[in-house]
Amino acid sequence: MYHFNSTLSSAEQSDAESATQPERPGSEAGPLDADLLSRLHRYWNAANYLCVGQIYLKANALLHEPLLAEHIKPRLLGHWGTSVGQNFIYVHLNRLICDRRIETIFISGPGHGGPTMNACAWLEGTYSEVHPDIPADEEGMLAFFRSFSTPGGIPSHCGPHTPNSLHEGGELGYSLMHAFGAVFDNPHLLVACVIGDGEAETCPLEGSWKSVHFLDPRRDGAVLPILHLNGYKISGPTVEARLPDEQLIELYRGRGYQPVIVAGDDLPGMHQRFAAALNICHDAIREQQARSRAEGGAARARWPMIILRSPKGWTGPKVVDGVPVEGTFRAHQVPLANVIGNPEHLQQLERWLRSYSPETLFDQNGRLLPELQALTPPAALRMGAVPYVNGGRVLVALDLPNFADYGLEVPGPGQVIAEAPRRLGEYLRDVMRNNPHNFRVFGPDETNSNRLNAVFEASNRTAPGPCLEIDDHLASDGRVMEVLSEHLCEGWLEGYLLTGRHGMWSTYEAFAQVVDSMVTQHAKWLQQSREFAWRRPLASLNILISSHAWRNDHNGFSHQSTGFVDNVLQRRADVVRVYYPPDSNCLVNVFDHCLRSRNYINVVTCGKQPDFQWLDFDAALKHCSQGASIWDFAGSDDSETPDVVLGCAGDVPTTEAVAAAWLLQKHVPGIRVRLVNVVDLGILSAPEDRPHGMDHVSFEALFTRDAPVMFAFHGSTWVIHSMVHGRANEARFHVRGFSDRGTTTTPFDMVVLNRLSRYQLAIDALSHVPRLRAQSLDAVHFFESQLRKHHTWIREHFEDMPEIRNWCWTADFSESQTPPPLAKGHSRGQTFTDA
Amino acid sequence: MYHFNSTLSSAEQSDAESATQPERPGSEAGPLDADLLSRLHRYWNAANYLCVGQIYLKANALLHEPLLAEHIKPRLLGHWGTSVGQNFIYVHLNRLICDRRIETIFISGPGHGGPTMNACAWLEGTYSEVHPDIPADEEGMLAFFRSFSTPGGIPSHCGPHTPNSLHEGGELGYSLMHAFGAVFDNPHLLVACVIGDGEAETCPLEGSWKSVHFLDPRRDGAVLPILHLNGYKISGPTVEARLPDEQLIELYRGRGYQPVIVAGDDLPGMHQRFAAALNICHDAIREQQARSRAEGGAARARWPMIILRSPKGWTGPKVVDGVPVEGTFRAHQVPLANVIGNPEHLQQLERWLRSYSPETLFDQNGRLLPELQALTPPAALRMGAVPYVNGGRVLVALDLPNFADYGLEVPGPGQVIAEAPRRLGEYLRDVMRNNPHNFRVFGPDETNSNRLNAVFEASNRTAPGPCLEIDDHLASDGRVMEVLSEHLCEGWLEGYLLTGRHGMWSTYEAFAQVVDSMVTQHAKWLQQSREFAWRRPLASLNILISSHAWRNDHNGFSHQSTGFVDNVLQRRADVVRVYYPPDSNCLVNVFDHCLRSRNYINVVTCGKQPDFQWLDFDAALKHCSQGASIWDFAGSDDSETPDVVLGCAGDVPTTEAVAAAWLLQKHVPGIRVRLVNVVDLGILSAPEDRPHGMDHVSFEALFTRDAPVMFAFHGSTWVIHSMVHGRANEARFHVRGFSDRGTTTTPFDMVVLNRLSRYQLAIDALSHVPRLRAQSLDAVHFFESQLRKHHTWIREHFEDMPEIRNWCWTADFSESQTPPPLAKGHSRGQTFTDA
Repeated sequence: MYHFNSTLSSAEQSDAESATQPERPGSEAGPLDADLLSRLHRYWNAANYLCVGQIYLKANALLHEPLLAEHIKPRLLGHWGTSVGQNFIYVHLNRLICDRRIETIFISGPGHGGPTMNACAWLEGTYSEVHPDIPADEEGMLAFFRSFSTPGGIPSHCGPHTPNSLHEGGELGYSLMHAFGAVFDNPHLLVACVIGDGEAETCPLEGSWKSVHFLDPRRDGAVLPILHLNGYKISGPTVEARLPDEQLIELYRGRGYQPVIVAGDDLPGMHQRFAAALNICHDAIREQQARSRAEGGAARARWPMIILRSPKGWTGPKVVDGVPVEGTFRAHQVPLANVIGNPEHLQQLERWLRSYSPETLFDQNGRLLPELQALTPPAALRMGAVPYVNGGRVLVALDLPNFADYGLEVPGPGQVIAEAPRRLGEYLRDVMRNNPHNFRVFGPDETNSNRLNAVFEASNRTAPGPCLEIDDHLASDGRVMEVLSEHLCEGWLEGYLLTGRHGMWSTYEAFAQVVDSMVTQHAKWLQQSREFAWRRPLASLNILISSHAWRNDHNGFSHQSTGFVDNVLQRRADVVRVYYPPDSNCLVNVFDHCLRSRNYINVVTCGKQPDFQWLDFDAALKHCSQGASIWDFAGSDDSETPDVVLGCAGDVPTTEAVAAAWLLQKHVPGIRVRLVNVVDLGILSAPEDRPHGMDHVSFEALFTRDAPVMFAFHGSTWVIHSMVHGRANEARFHVRGFSDRGTTTTPFDMVVLNRLSRYQLAIDALSHVPRLRAQSLDAVHFFESQLRKHHTWIREHFEDMPEIRNWCWTADFSESQTPPPLAKGHSRGQTFTDA
Repeated sequence: MYHFNSTLSSAEQSDAESATQPERPGSEAGPLDADLLSRLHRYWNAANYLCVGQIYLKANALLHEPLLAEHIKPRLLGHWGTSVGQNFIYVHLNRLICDRRIETIFISGPGHGGPTMNACAWLEGTYSEVHPDIPADEEGMLAFFRSFSTPGGIPSHCGPHTPNSLHEGGELGYSLMHAFGAVFDNPHLLVACVIGDGEAETCPLEGSWKSVHFLDPRRDGAVLPILHLNGYKISGPTVEARLPDEQLIELYRGRGYQPVIVAGDDLPGMHQRFAAALNICHDAIREQQARSRAEGGAARARWPMIILRSPKGWTGPKVVDGVPVEGTFRAHQVPLANVIGNPEHLQQLERWLRSYSPETLFDQNGRLLPELQALTPPAALRMGAVPYVNGGRVLVALDLPNFADYGLEVPGPGQVIAEAPRRLGEYLRDVMRNNPHNFRVFGPDETNSNRLNAVFEASNRTAPGPCLEIDDHLASDGRVMEVLSEHLCEGWLEGYLLTGRHGMWSTYEAFAQVVDSMVTQHAKWLQQSREFAWRRPLASLNILISSHAWRNDHNGFSHQSTGFVDNVLQRRADVVRVYYPPDSNCLVNVFDHCLRSRNYINVVTCGKQPDFQWLDFDAALKHCSQGASIWDFAGSDDSETPDVVLGCAGDVPTTEAVAAAWLLQKHVPGIRVRLVNVVDLGILSAPEDRPHGMDHVSFEALFTRDAPVMFAFHGSTWVIHSMVHGRANEARFHVRGFSDRGTTTTPFDMVVLNRLSRYQLAIDALSHVPRLRAQSLDAVHFFESQLRKHHTWIREHFEDMPEIRNWCWTADFSESQTPPPLAKGHSRGQTFTDA
């Protein structure tokens, strides 16, 4: 049963016919013999039938009886428009895999590609293997149909439930970057990435094409992009579908590809042409890989891609209620609506379903006929069975160096100044050395600026083009991937992790928000994956924020925002962790923990600027393992019944809180102060709200039950307000945090503007200690005068006043005339590499 | 004084020389005569001198005395690398403007382009006009230098402080989409948009090139993109700088442009070639516009663009400490660091500054010499003076229809079902008709899906290419702009608003987060603009969220997130407003208010699905003007001293709260229930936290001082927790909100999963009413059994149980057997257009 209908507009047709590029395979002959062609077409019919069934049927799955309204689902959900073209591609890829025995992943980029992925997984058997309640027979087919887009069932896009998907497919734009992330360091893997023409309009997708420049054919696998132009988004045409072939070819050649166009709706011509196109592309990939791997060079040839122009909703109803549907935007979702209430639609649906001749595809028990099953690739090569698509199956734990070797010598609290990420850089360097094939570092060209430059001793930057003599640590086989795109950093890393490897990326805090929604989608993937035991745990997504809001004073207001963490914290608490290590030793501790963890999104915030170091390695280890603890050195001796607790999380707030505690003890004799530092933010939440929240007894051991708490926080105040909701006497928590007040300032002025300076904390703390009101009047006046003095000073001198620049913590409250020494190899320079 | 240094690598040079495209103007002759050339070069020197001065000098601005360490700023901030090339472009554009008298805006895309924009505005006089404390003389020059990147001063990127910038330039990637937004409906405007090669790697920028397909030359102005390839990001090379010219040409032709390449570092050749390139491009623009406007057709020719390859840090220090700097990544920020402590660097800085011969540029009083001032365009055409760059100056208030005409008839609370946005669509249709040149609607192809299709009676979709017969409401002069990119919707609208027009966009709630960081940047622009009286108020940025988390049950988990508002609410309270109109009449009221407002970001969330209508137009007007009020009909008669207050915000939570109040009264005789609905969320905050927060007396008039409050909220619980922080007895607020628990469900099941269903609210409310514990036991058991029944029912029937589907509010608590009637023209259909 072939469809010879022609739904391409005449304008499109004439474009298609006039294009005589050699890239376009001829439409007559082809690589498929008659038998294979016929079976392949029927396999496609089977996939199409299963897609229509998912959308419409809740009974009578195989049409053993005439179709009745009672067989139809009450809510018609799912998207037909994209499914049939994706089925076409999937079925043809199966043929290629059978022929050439290649490990292949199918990434379904277009929106709502769920029906295809479900159907093809069910046909190849992988669906039933992971869902024994959905066997590959009639009973299973019905259960399968009934589960689609129904309560407690499966969604209309790709998700963890279907074994051939490696990512959450609901938000469009990330398929191609995930595809490239998947093939890095997987030299034998082919990722066929289908990109919808709607999806192709998103900025993240447009920005992904350049990933090809970062591919090293010697050690990376290949991505075969298949741009599927079916003409329409929901109701309007797409930009690229309306471009003439000539311009599409220019565009994709300019992007670094060699496009092969397959266009039309003629059958069997389309089968032959698409099969030929796949062969041509795979030949080119093999040749490119063989040449590069033999010669040892990373010659940058163009990589092949396919542009498939086929009608939206191909093989579906051509006309409904007198208006054209197939090949138009009306085929986007369900081409036949209101089926239960409209007998004509019901009849049309039955004709449509029977047009695939299910009786020639499945046996009486609903099993795919053996001659069609024979088209399924060998078990291990089915696209729902290759291990990369369930990355935890191939995950190898990192060979981590002993993190204790990366301690920074801290002779006493606040006795040395250091750039916290430097030692982490050395640790990461050795992680790279020990794990040369499954660990990568990503970032928007800030590795050096973030003081992680030691990693360049282990590997270079990945060159995005030819190298010049003047370049710094650049090579086509570099493993430090720098691209000025937070989207790509996040997306490549996601693809890398989803296929069973490890990594991290570092970025500006403000611009981490560029990927808020991407992180949300990954969190949803992780959360849902936990429901399926067969989805094996993945390495965590580790994000280092070293250029943070409090020290972007010189970059100005646009570079200051702490909102990224707020968004992350709204994801389910069992998949996110948020850390604020206050110094170098805590940072190494936290990061080692993150690299060992699984299935989390870890967000670690620790500034790169030279700052006070508080804990030696052993103390940091203990502190971080508890998540929060009382810092005895910073509080007063009799702080067991404190007048006030100073809480802090984040490096800058910690310094201010320690200094405030110091000022209070120096200027208000007799005050009882306790300082609590928090590294692992989530423990502040009650355990009923967050699984690793601290139990109430432990919480009150830190914060007491009723003492006022001045909490100095790196992020926005409401994070802490909401976390302590439900704790005893929650109104006693007075939070100072980031509040969009900074502009162009000095470092200390940032905390002044945001009312989080040591002086302000001390003033505000005293306002909650009525016992000492009289004794504290002079101190409050002094603190206020210091704030006035500072304001004037910085406008004259452009740097903080000496009391601030030279302050350091002293056990005897003596004033220092110079800051503590710099740790060896660290620098005070704030200018050259601070992007 | 010319620089003839050659810092392009030999590989790049050979590319440059071998490119013999006709697009490349010859390098010898040129359009500039010797006098003009010389003066133009000196003007460029002046701009360069001012950039170096901004970075380094705090005294001795004109080098009237030898340079000493004490003249140097203690913190060296700002970015030299990009400045000199941008100065080059700015100066040449001035020449073009003088020649051709075109209204032109300069958009500086590369990171940290502040020094250029500041310097060129100061030279042309516009800077001093808006900042009288920075006059155009030596005193002003010094004050200008001293203000750059110092406390209380101006940032290192473009911001509202400099009159020639129309957007916040800190976060990269949005320059080109803002440029296109600016020229829509501004037929005589030219926007020269400089794009850095680092910026060109961001996904939003890559996705912006296609904007050209949405330009109608008959009624829109022109964008001249100038891609500035200076080779490096912070420390690595950029992708496009390493592409050969041939491939760049393919790429940009494919994107719809006709590139003109200007490459090199030879002078005066570069001046002549760049001037010629500008002439060629402007000729092409004029010709294209003239032809389209004469012929009345919208022929889609390629639009010109310039690719400028020049060395990073051109004219700066060539070698520092023995390593090459000019033309390398080392010129990115400050090419000479540690100047105060290194006498050699200090000398080198002085030589560098003097290489521009300031004595030949400025007179003894620091005023630009008259023969150079003569190069400044006529006053009104200076790029810091054209009114579009301060859009409020040309803002014309919308001619709005009488919003009372768009009321929906509501015979009684809950007595009719309607799709809330339908009437809004009619209102927007008439806004479009009344304002055909300064109002546009944007959206990712969801105008129809969001029930706003009435707008198509006023205008079509903007066609992104040739139109076909099959297309629906598509035309090249359409004013409804649909592109599947939240980035472009937001960015185009921003550009449109920033140049003094009006508009709105609608989108999915979950995917609004795609532009979290863009909205943050715009909020920062609005917030900072308020500090400058000369920046006139802009129309607000209006965002409609109609496909919201609670009714994306069928799309699945990926489509459910309420985080967008959480991010918006963290911006300064004086620039954001968040509305949750509960029905059609409230939605029209709120939107009319939004279109009249200025300088806000308004986020309006109201679902598109058929749902209960509660208030008639007059009641809605009163309710919305108060922001929140008690709904008497829903509470019990004696609710002045309620046992419990049910609060609600959002359409779905409102229905559940009203139903919960109904259930409580029906099943627990004697209970005193009050229902408070909140439309304008910000009023929940204390006035000390948020300027339009409700005073405490009014707040307690709604929520009492001590009654327990069950609050049903559309978003995450912590939004409400943080807002009521500081209110009397805050611990009595028990919030139910969205919590990432939905997957594939029915509408009602969404609220069940998120513990916000009427039954759950009723159960939880009763737990806070100890007075009625005994009387409420049966009710609690019934509510619990209904939840169990529902769970089973939906898994069998795939739709909600009849008690839910048919429920409607009744004054006598009688059970309904059918839902209320649909409003005329509204539909229950959930399938066809629900994307």
